[in-house]
Amino acid sequence: MAIMSSPLTFQPVLDRIAAEIGQTPDRGHPADYIPALAACDPHRFGMAVAELDGTVYGVGDWRQPFSTQSLTKVFTLALDLAREADELWEHVGREPSGNPFNSLVQLEYENGIPRNPFINAGALVVTDRLHSQTGDAAGTLLDFLRAESGNDGLAINEDVAASESAHGDRNAALGHFMASYGNIRNPVPVLLDEYFRQCSVEASCADLALATGFLARHGIRADGSRLLTMSQAKQVNAVMLTCGTYDAAGEFAYRVGLPGKSGVGGGVIAVVPGRCTLCVWSPGLDEHGNSVAGVTALDRFTTITGLSVF
Amino acid sequence: MAIMSSPLTFQPVLDRIAAEIGQTPDRGHPADYIPALAACDPHRFGMAVAELDGTVYGVGDWRQPFSTQSLTKVFTLALDLAREADELWEHVGREPSGNPFNSLVQLEYENGIPRNPFINAGALVVTDRLHSQTGDAAGTLLDFLRAESGNDGLAINEDVAASESAHGDRNAALGHFMASYGNIRNPVPVLLDEYFRQCSVEASCADLALATGFLARHGIRADGSRLLTMSQAKQVNAVMLTCGTYDAAGEFAYRVGLPGKSGVGGGVIAVVPGRCTLCVWSPGLDEHGNSVAGVTALDRFTTITGLSVF
Amino acid sequence: MAIMSSPLTFQPVLDRIAAEIGQTPDRGHPADYIPALAACDPHRFGMAVAELDGTVYGVGDWRQPFSTQSLTKVFTLALDLAREADELWEHVGREPSGNPFNSLVQLEYENGIPRNPFINAGALVVTDRLHSQTGDAAGTLLDFLRAESGNDGLAINEDVAASESAHGDRNAALGHFMASYGNIRNPVPVLLDEYFRQCSVEASCADLALATGFLARHGIRADGSRLLTMSQAKQVNAVMLTCGTYDAAGEFAYRVGLPGKSGVGGGVIAVVPGRCTLCVWSPGLDEHGNSVAGVTALDRFTTITGLSVF
Amino acid sequence: MAIMSSPLTFQPVLDRIAAEIGQTPDRGHPADYIPALAACDPHRFGMAVAELDGTVYGVGDWRQPFSTQSLTKVFTLALDLAREADELWEHVGREPSGNPFNSLVQLEYENGIPRNPFINAGALVVTDRLHSQTGDAAGTLLDFLRAESGNDGLAINEDVAASESAHGDRNAALGHFMASYGNIRNPVPVLLDEYFRQCSVEASCADLALATGFLARHGIRADGSRLLTMSQAKQVNAVMLTCGTYDAAGEFAYRVGLPGKSGVGGGVIAVVPGRCTLCVWSPGLDEHGNSVAGVTALDRFTTITGLSVF
Repeated sequence: MAIMSSPLTFQPVLDRIAAEIGQTPDRGHPADYIPALAACDPHRFGMAVAELDGTVYGVGDWRQPFSTQSLTKVFTLALDLAREADELWEHVGREPSGNPFNSLVQLEYENGIPRNPFINAGALVVTDRLHSQTGDAAGTLLDFLRAESGNDGLAINEDVAASESAHGDRNAALGHFMASYGNIRNPVPVLLDEYFRQCSVEASCADLALATGFLARHGIRADGSRLLTMSQAKQVNAVMLTCGTYDAAGEFAYRVGLPGKSGVGGGVIAVVPGRCTLCVWSPGLDEHGNSVAGVTALDRFTTITGLSVF
Repeated sequence: MAIMSSPLTFQPVLDRIAAEIGQTPDRGHPADYIPALAACDPHRFGMAVAELDGTVYGVGDWRQPFSTQSLTKVFTLALDLAREADELWEHVGREPSGNPFNSLVQLEYENGIPRNPFINAGALVVTDRLHSQTGDAAGTLLDFLRAESGNDGLAINEDVAASESAHGDRNAALGHFMASYGNIRNPVPVLLDEYFRQCSVEASCADLALATGFLARHGIRADGSRLLTMSQAKQVNAVMLTCGTYDAAGEFAYRVGLPGKSGVGGGVIAVVPGRCTLCVWSPGLDEHGNSVAGVTALDRFTTITGLSVF
Repeated sequence: MAIMSSPLTFQPVLDRIAAEIGQTPDRGHPADYIPALAACDPHRFGMAVAELDGTVYGVGDWRQPFSTQSLTKVFTLALDLAREADELWEHVGREPSGNPFNSLVQLEYENGIPRNPFINAGALVVTDRLHSQTGDAAGTLLDFLRAESGNDGLAINEDVAASESAHGDRNAALGHFMASYGNIRNPVPVLLDEYFRQCSVEASCADLALATGFLARHGIRADGSRLLTMSQAKQVNAVMLTCGTYDAAGEFAYRVGLPGKSGVGGGVIAVVPGRCTLCVWSPGLDEHGNSVAGVTALDRFTTITGLSVF
Repeated sequence: MAIMSSPLTFQPVLDRIAAEIGQTPDRGHPADYIPALAACDPHRFGMAVAELDGTVYGVGDWRQPFSTQSLTKVFTLALDLAREADELWEHVGREPSGNPFNSLVQLEYENGIPRNPFINAGALVVTDRLHSQTGDAAGTLLDFLRAESGNDGLAINEDVAASESAHGDRNAALGHFMASYGNIRNPVPVLLDEYFRQCSVEASCADLALATGFLARHGIRADGSRLLTMSQAKQVNAVMLTCGTYDAAGEFAYRVGLPGKSGVGGGVIAVVPGRCTLCVWSPGLDEHGNSVAGVTALDRFTTITGLSVF
């Protein structure tokens, strides 16, 4: 099979994938726990690839903003790690959970220390700590995403944040539960507000592929400054690969073979270290909460290009 | 830091690592559940790197045979996958377990389907299926290891196998438990005998680095024939990265950043896809059952050479 | 109330038990999660027996008010059952939990339905429902205790309630968690306020032995009116016997052989159906949260009098 | 044995219950894991009551032998307790399990010590210990049942025992699992053979009501000799009440209010301490493994006679 018509561009690959996805009828179902997500059309599809220098290729709805949801966990992790370094790992683990993303079971057996920063409990700890460091966790995140994407129009959808809060009992339970073990420092309602706002940032595939670039550049931001050490950037990639797609991380590693992170808004970001970053969006989810078309598109991408880490 | 005195050889890297390890006093404790392992000196240390063409570099006790134990789970997985392909995945999962390697808890919640092929329950399923395919699971493994390493002297230590069997109640429980769900086809005592014999193969770092080569060569054996498809080889690497070091897989990915598999005999194998394979041996284990010096040596290797997949 | 001196009196039994307890040095440790409880002297000891007609016998600190804590779970259960009957059992189970009293694990596996009304999760459901029925759960409880004990001075210690609230993250987690399953009807903060106030009622052994009388009288209150049907009264006794002392219910049934309920304030109530009710208080707790001297005293009582249900 | 016709007789109660049961269409389904049990007609129904002096009343199939299954756990517990006293409780607990009868989960969290003697794991420990004490656990049981029932014809159905063994992987797993913790003393295959033979004793409602008599007589056997101390007899009753009907013990206590034990052969025995013993048989089971008509019949018995312990 001829892989790419030109070694200089990913465009033909994206076009081919979009064509294949267009012929796939089964797209799963959008998340239905809040109205704003349930209303999404599962046939929307966008995909973007950003090269290290900021060149972006895209197809379909790649410029359409969508609800980032858990994708932001990658950025808050990096932003806190940049400030706290290994101190963070005393409060959240780095192991796959083997349980659904919002389970309390493992949390109880491990005395309030979440297994990893990408399950909800772990992300609450990261947000709590970033908020203590900065006084404005959601704002710090938004500033970072704007800077990396070059898109000053990125914003929090406050209606979505309010809707998340109104359906937030499970996350409130997680927050109070960890607080009972002394692993949360801010008042739980304050933490929840920061957390739900951070989940409600809207951005496009293009924005997010660009914003993820520092993980392919071994820690270097778009402006050339260093956010993470090389070692820390590798660590974030490792955590993404082992824990980034809920309790289907093994399946994702097996099929896609890249560090990746999914969100219930239908977005998936992925990293080819030293080469490029990707973001796919399609709102229909599988039973694990991962975008059906998103994972399929990434699977096709690594198969066609051979760009798996394995 | 100057990384390698010559781009053509890993020898200086190995020498430097061995020197560093030699100055590290804390080596953990050998496995103590059977006498043959408990008697090992935790200060023994060997390391080998095999390039794709079979060139091997080594340091320390790199030619000393040791008890492979769970390292063989990688090879039986590949040998069965080569025969059964995706049929295997209906009987064993590919997700990290989040529980100790010999736990029955998750097995019960998932109706006798083990989480992955590298926990004991999963390896028993793989051995059971390979035995049904070949009529001689342990012999098939031994033939493969001899062929790939070029060492016809490789053998099963029958005393160790007998000792494993005498202390095998936990594995017997796993076997009967899965049999109660219909997920074991051979009589449990037959299966256990094959399993304990396979764990009791003895080989050196040099042998094992060579035998792992097919995973760096995308499925191609030492003689140039194909064992696994490219996709299957990547899949085995993905399962190693996410599940290869018991409930410390996240930690291993984070520190080492390579697909790897450890055994309680103190061995660790690792793969740099497209580049080389490694085997380290040092019998002292940490609380997760991974070789203390072995993991440290691999951590140093990827740091010095930059050869992490991330 | 007259203390009888006839040969039919329980007084000599109580005196003998108090003398034995006085010579027992090991009393456990008071609950230490809030200052008000931690300050209690573990050598305090009181015990009262109330006959069906309201005659009360007592020894030691039997007239000393103490923090009732989980003892009130028995009364709120009865008060809600009197209003809702079997409707209640669709929202809380009747099975022993086999887990600590504040565990979230079992709750998760059973979709937000607590195992029984005496673990904290179950008591929260009962309080939530009683509050919906009455508009004032804590007030309804207090009125009942005053009426049955004939002691209008019974009151809620608001300082203790505030202290419970300040250390209430675990209960907040339970409340939000069940709310996420739709099993809580009031706003969680409102529910928690009612719950902590109800736990903070102070009463003496005499008060509580009298207030428990309806369970020995097969549902009949002190004034002769019926609170529960005979069948319901037996059901409450059954739940007390199987679930009344946290994860030591089997041990309590084995040693004492009576329906009983303990609280972390050091109180224990028990029922001899058709004969009498008991309350013991001593603040030192064992590792399960049950009063050391309290359980010992009840064990001695049933041994001396032969009044076990078995 | 004489069937009384005096006003003190239980006969009219049994006749009334049998008539009611006869009009109840839903009988559940027989156990189907072995052919011998699956073949039972769920409309068979027998019930017997034995008074303390050995007078027996019966109705329906009360003289029909059936497979005792887990009912024998009560007798082996008593027989070992008579020999070992409290030593036994260091190897098996007395707490309800909150999990299905053959779960391995709790066993793992508690290091090989089963929660109570009536889940399969606990019964295996009791049988193992009784076998060590007597050299013939199943024979000791059979001798006891023959003596108490006065029926020398009681026997083990060896076909059923062989069938149990052929489907015994789950129990084999439990046995090996506890052996891995050092909590089994005999070779696991020997233990399993004893266990399956003991489960395969066949006896009638009349036989079993009589054989249970020692628990209503506070430890005294049919011949007037003492098997258990009064305290031990109460303890066995307490364990029956809290743990006797798998994970429906709370439900049974709530509905029936008597110490009881069920078996998957459809039998249920129950004790009214100081008054009488009962045995009901009907092969149709509910989802917890308890006889549907058996539990209903006992529920009706305590309601009609008022003989609940509560």
